[in-house]
Amino acid sequence: MLDKFKDECGVFGIFGHPEAANMTYLGLYALQHRGQESAGIAASDGEQVRVSRAMGYVADTFDSQALGQLPGSSAIGHVRYSTAGESKLSNAQPILIDCAHGQIAVCHNGNLVNARELREDLVRQGSIFQSNSDTEVVLHLYARSKAATVEDAVVESVSQVQGAFSLVILTRDRLIAVRDPHGFRPLALGRLGDAVVVCSETCAMDLIGASYIRDVEPGEVLVVSAAGVRSIKPFPPAPLAHCIFEHVYFARPDSYVFGKSVNEVRTTLGRILAREQPVDADVVVPVPDSGVCAAMGYAEEARIPLRMGLIRNHYVGRTFIQPQASIRHFGVKVKLNPVKSILQGQRVVLVDDSIVRGTTSRKIV
Amino acid sequence: MLDKFKDECGVFGIFGHPEAANMTYLGLYALQHRGQESAGIAASDGEQVRVSRAMGYVADTFDSQALGQLPGSSAIGHVRYSTAGESKLSNAQPILIDCAHGQIAVCHNGNLVNARELREDLVRQGSIFQSNSDTEVVLHLYARSKAATVEDAVVESVSQVQGAFSLVILTRDRLIAVRDPHGFRPLALGRLGDAVVVCSETCAMDLIGASYIRDVEPGEVLVVSAAGVRSIKPFPPAPLAHCIFEHVYFARPDSYVFGKSVNEVRTTLGRILAREQPVDADVVVPVPDSGVCAAMGYAEEARIPLRMGLIRNHYVGRTFIQPQASIRHFGVKVKLNPVKSILQGQRVVLVDDSIVRGTTSRKIV
Amino acid sequence: MLDKFKDECGVFGIFGHPEAANMTYLGLYALQHRGQESAGIAASDGEQVRVSRAMGYVADTFDSQALGQLPGSSAIGHVRYSTAGESKLSNAQPILIDCAHGQIAVCHNGNLVNARELREDLVRQGSIFQSNSDTEVVLHLYARSKAATVEDAVVESVSQVQGAFSLVILTRDRLIAVRDPHGFRPLALGRLGDAVVVCSETCAMDLIGASYIRDVEPGEVLVVSAAGVRSIKPFPPAPLAHCIFEHVYFARPDSYVFGKSVNEVRTTLGRILAREQPVDADVVVPVPDSGVCAAMGYAEEARIPLRMGLIRNHYVGRTFIQPQASIRHFGVKVKLNPVKSILQGQRVVLVDDSIVRGTTSRKIV
Amino acid sequence: MLDKFKDECGVFGIFGHPEAANMTYLGLYALQHRGQESAGIAASDGEQVRVSRAMGYVADTFDSQALGQLPGSSAIGHVRYSTAGESKLSNAQPILIDCAHGQIAVCHNGNLVNARELREDLVRQGSIFQSNSDTEVVLHLYARSKAATVEDAVVESVSQVQGAFSLVILTRDRLIAVRDPHGFRPLALGRLGDAVVVCSETCAMDLIGASYIRDVEPGEVLVVSAAGVRSIKPFPPAPLAHCIFEHVYFARPDSYVFGKSVNEVRTTLGRILAREQPVDADVVVPVPDSGVCAAMGYAEEARIPLRMGLIRNHYVGRTFIQPQASIRHFGVKVKLNPVKSILQGQRVVLVDDSIVRGTTSRKIV
Repeated sequence: MLDKFKDECGVFGIFGHPEAANMTYLGLYALQHRGQESAGIAASDGEQVRVSRAMGYVADTFDSQALGQLPGSSAIGHVRYSTAGESKLSNAQPILIDCAHGQIAVCHNGNLVNARELREDLVRQGSIFQSNSDTEVVLHLYARSKAATVEDAVVESVSQVQGAFSLVILTRDRLIAVRDPHGFRPLALGRLGDAVVVCSETCAMDLIGASYIRDVEPGEVLVVSAAGVRSIKPFPPAPLAHCIFEHVYFARPDSYVFGKSVNEVRTTLGRILAREQPVDADVVVPVPDSGVCAAMGYAEEARIPLRMGLIRNHYVGRTFIQPQASIRHFGVKVKLNPVKSILQGQRVVLVDDSIVRGTTSRKIV
Repeated sequence: MLDKFKDECGVFGIFGHPEAANMTYLGLYALQHRGQESAGIAASDGEQVRVSRAMGYVADTFDSQALGQLPGSSAIGHVRYSTAGESKLSNAQPILIDCAHGQIAVCHNGNLVNARELREDLVRQGSIFQSNSDTEVVLHLYARSKAATVEDAVVESVSQVQGAFSLVILTRDRLIAVRDPHGFRPLALGRLGDAVVVCSETCAMDLIGASYIRDVEPGEVLVVSAAGVRSIKPFPPAPLAHCIFEHVYFARPDSYVFGKSVNEVRTTLGRILAREQPVDADVVVPVPDSGVCAAMGYAEEARIPLRMGLIRNHYVGRTFIQPQASIRHFGVKVKLNPVKSILQGQRVVLVDDSIVRGTTSRKIV
Repeated sequence: MLDKFKDECGVFGIFGHPEAANMTYLGLYALQHRGQESAGIAASDGEQVRVSRAMGYVADTFDSQALGQLPGSSAIGHVRYSTAGESKLSNAQPILIDCAHGQIAVCHNGNLVNARELREDLVRQGSIFQSNSDTEVVLHLYARSKAATVEDAVVESVSQVQGAFSLVILTRDRLIAVRDPHGFRPLALGRLGDAVVVCSETCAMDLIGASYIRDVEPGEVLVVSAAGVRSIKPFPPAPLAHCIFEHVYFARPDSYVFGKSVNEVRTTLGRILAREQPVDADVVVPVPDSGVCAAMGYAEEARIPLRMGLIRNHYVGRTFIQPQASIRHFGVKVKLNPVKSILQGQRVVLVDDSIVRGTTSRKIV
Repeated sequence: MLDKFKDECGVFGIFGHPEAANMTYLGLYALQHRGQESAGIAASDGEQVRVSRAMGYVADTFDSQALGQLPGSSAIGHVRYSTAGESKLSNAQPILIDCAHGQIAVCHNGNLVNARELREDLVRQGSIFQSNSDTEVVLHLYARSKAATVEDAVVESVSQVQGAFSLVILTRDRLIAVRDPHGFRPLALGRLGDAVVVCSETCAMDLIGASYIRDVEPGEVLVVSAAGVRSIKPFPPAPLAHCIFEHVYFARPDSYVFGKSVNEVRTTLGRILAREQPVDADVVVPVPDSGVCAAMGYAEEARIPLRMGLIRNHYVGRTFIQPQASIRHFGVKVKLNPVKSILQGQRVVLVDDSIVRGTTSRKIV
């Protein structure tokens, strides 16, 4: 088990906006913290769905020429990060296919627990796979569905998968948003004038000036078309199971996730921690950027001064050159530098909310 | 007058290290906040000085191949940002020339107030200029000096210029650091084993594991060669005049600048502000990243809770695409997003330390 | 109908060579004239098949790092040019899929006449398509085949398609070459030491030092594995139908195509033309590069001097900037410039072998 | 001594055309065969001279954005190739400087024999050098000239240099063309409507539709301004000394160089060679591309059939990857492939006009 998450993703979708691809570009830019490896946008002009995908940051890889080749008033987008060794363009999303139900593009945030079995079963039936992604499984189920309508085929296919999925789907004339019955991953619903917006975090709505309405509910299938917004709840009820890492680590503090302010949740967690684990110290220091809110809560509750004792360097390039000379804790130092005047000789409470196995935290300490 | 500074720069130099160019690369990486437009490194192998310069971040534009073409045990480097409309490669530094005193490369942090007159005078005498940089003036004075030694020629040339200058100079066999008599710009001196290091801020020493010894003093010329370190003080005494923006805005809080902890200075400024300008409020919010320390000081002194009510997006690309649809305060929103749960209905003390004319601050408010 | 061909492609495959990907890179470089739009290589290390594809010339887009990520002793490659408006990376080859028979990568030169019907049929059965390429049809047929062996599944799938196809196929442990029963497109077989080589033209063998043995015969399926080379002839006999454009236009004159020297065929065609269409003239001028051989034959037969009266510029960039000022015949001039001293006042026989509709030829005249 | 030339360059200039930078771009494209390493364009809008330089082909490195930043109705350009190990951007041209006579940009084709002495002398007087180029010497002499006018300063500076120089010079309001008294390097003069054009070879005029008028004469200084074209002949007469490699190797056969058709000169050289060195053979084969004209002359005079027995691959990338396995004559094969059907068992006259030391020719044979 690695000291990192296997996958992080951000999804965005908009229906009924003259600059759908541009808005998706901005939405992905606001969601960039959820995945820095690859980015992609698909757009529909009512006749045809087109896709563009690239490795790297959305603001570095999409230019006005690329966006110009994605005309239409509906679009979806995806940012992705994977530590599973498969950082290939063929795994980037949206995945766009043509099938019996016409063209369909899909963005997926989450992991399916029965993907392997379904894939093996599909392969036995003659399906071909061009990526390692769970998402391709959903598309095969969709393509094989005999349902009469796109909506029914979507429902039929997602009913067969188990696990975490927040899906944003684009067809020629529809935007469909789906959230698994447990509600593992977030998916928010909003409006920008007459346009409908769905996205992983509300910070994407803030940037484009859209208003947050509510979350897509666990188990809800939301179909947006020229006929309006229709909500289907095809799944049997399931116990809620929000991914705790969304609030403590993934999401931006200015977002509402699972209907709650990320900042407030983190600050409260810090307060609770201070009550549960009181300690006599001189200073509370967050590991930036995600640890700041919790450290504030801790510091206030414990009445110990908060200090920015670690400074993050935000200019890390993609291929950082290591010196041959050994430099102590180089890997951590490249990102974080301790502030001697704050830390020297002090008893420090270090608040880090991105601990998985703790190996990085040990080096920081 | 713009709402930004005309110039920001960071300089670095190392003498006597087997991986001089690699260490300079790391030093520039730590100083990247002082200039994101262009980066350059010059290195000497004792016979020849070579230079490599590029537009962009040091971690994006220098790779191991580029560094491999800069052999030698002494090197200097420069990062630069300019708002003066001249973001050209020909203005990037170090500037490397050949002249009567042999090869010399120069990195300059500062602005000369008599550069225009000196340039006009030099041009009248037949000098040619290939850039708009003040630094080329210093090089012409140096090349025309009849002094017998490199040191004397450096002293003779810098004695003729007025204004702010922290210079790091590399010749075939010497590293020379110069700081103007007023000490406008910082320049720190340190050691890494047997190697001598000079740099704008101590955070560059922290990354490579060097120890801070003292500042290069205002009016000091420091000559580092195989014979050791020699200090010359050729200038008449002048009143000290540290650039206040170093402490409030330019420098990283983990650095020591002008011999003081940037973090401490900022926090103290925040405290003083709270005493001088007390105000009844619910929450203190910094404009990140540079406003955080001062906001902490203010909050503590005023006993008002500190909250991260503005979130900075660090993924801004170099050519950000604007939508055609007008989005309110788009330019500010691309970088900063307000956290509604913190700000809504609250009386907010906003602490921003990068105000020049205040137009950006007005939009943030 | 355009004045250009819809598709040109070159294919290459090698089995049993320690530097399979490198040799494929060189083979594609020699076949670059058959397609300059995209290039791709797939390689197998006996366990896993990996693929890398890119837009552009093979020598510009593949570097030693990219080739290093394609380990193994068998590899196939493809260069492609398409005028059908679909110059997308998703249409580049090889296409690599995973299916019931395991991983398979395919390179295809040719066009299938029943691809549309097969595709519609497959889509009805639930297949998904990620490109517009005919080749994906073959892969679906292969994946759906219930045949027990890879060879049988290949035979079963290609037996259902009609049209022109020279296929080079790579699985974990096999290289399979297939040529349609009519032999529309060329495919040559050779040896490089113990390694087996297949390629569109023999010039690819010349570059890597391989020896030409014979053509893969029309209707032949050649299976190369650790067990040796096995030839299957599963198709009923069909009338031979070599694509005439291979000899007059596509192929390089130093290649043997359909078992004959391209140079000889072209020179002979020029001779025949001179006999069939004799004309009183001062000079014979070829349209370079492909018209040179035929012009030589014509000139010799007609006993009229040959002169290089048109000069081709080989430095055309991918995004050539047109001036706003109208320049007569600019589009043609960018590639070809007439030599006044040869043409002025002369009666010219212009020999061009790349006429499809003749619009370009008219401008050249 | 290498088996290649130290330097090849092409120069272009235009005065009085609304699209001066675009036309220069096209002119350089036509002259690309004279230098593929770096390209540069300088343009003047009557107030300011701006320059843009890049490594690589002009059609790859200049786009419409780069050309748009070079406004004005006069422009000059340069393509360069150097084998002297100094393929650096700082050696690319035009060199643009500011000096006592104002801004001046220079493009230089040729080598100065007294550059070293002049440089040493200038350095002693306090001049600084930023490149290794001979051209910087001319600029220093120009800047130090006390002459009252730009023309006189140009004449004064070029009067001090010896060797080969065809210069195209741009100031705020003038285009100046200079050719050394021996006329080593070519420089042609033409017209495009009201605009004046100068360039190394007439093929650049052909592409933009300009008409060749005459050569800039050896020893002539041509000053083009709003006042018209003025010719100065400031040099004492010198014996003519055209560089023979222009006609046999450098120039394109469709150009007029030194007032003669390159194609005709080469064909005649081939005829003379056939008379001087008759040999009993079956076939005459040129080494393409530059050997074709001479081979035609030889073949006709000797009444031996001409055949394209060597095929050149025009798709060579900038970083060609060599296989580890040794391939016989790989370096030559990458560019040239023998046509077996032409050469096998034949007595061949191989005509190559690019012999310097003959090491490459030996491999080809």
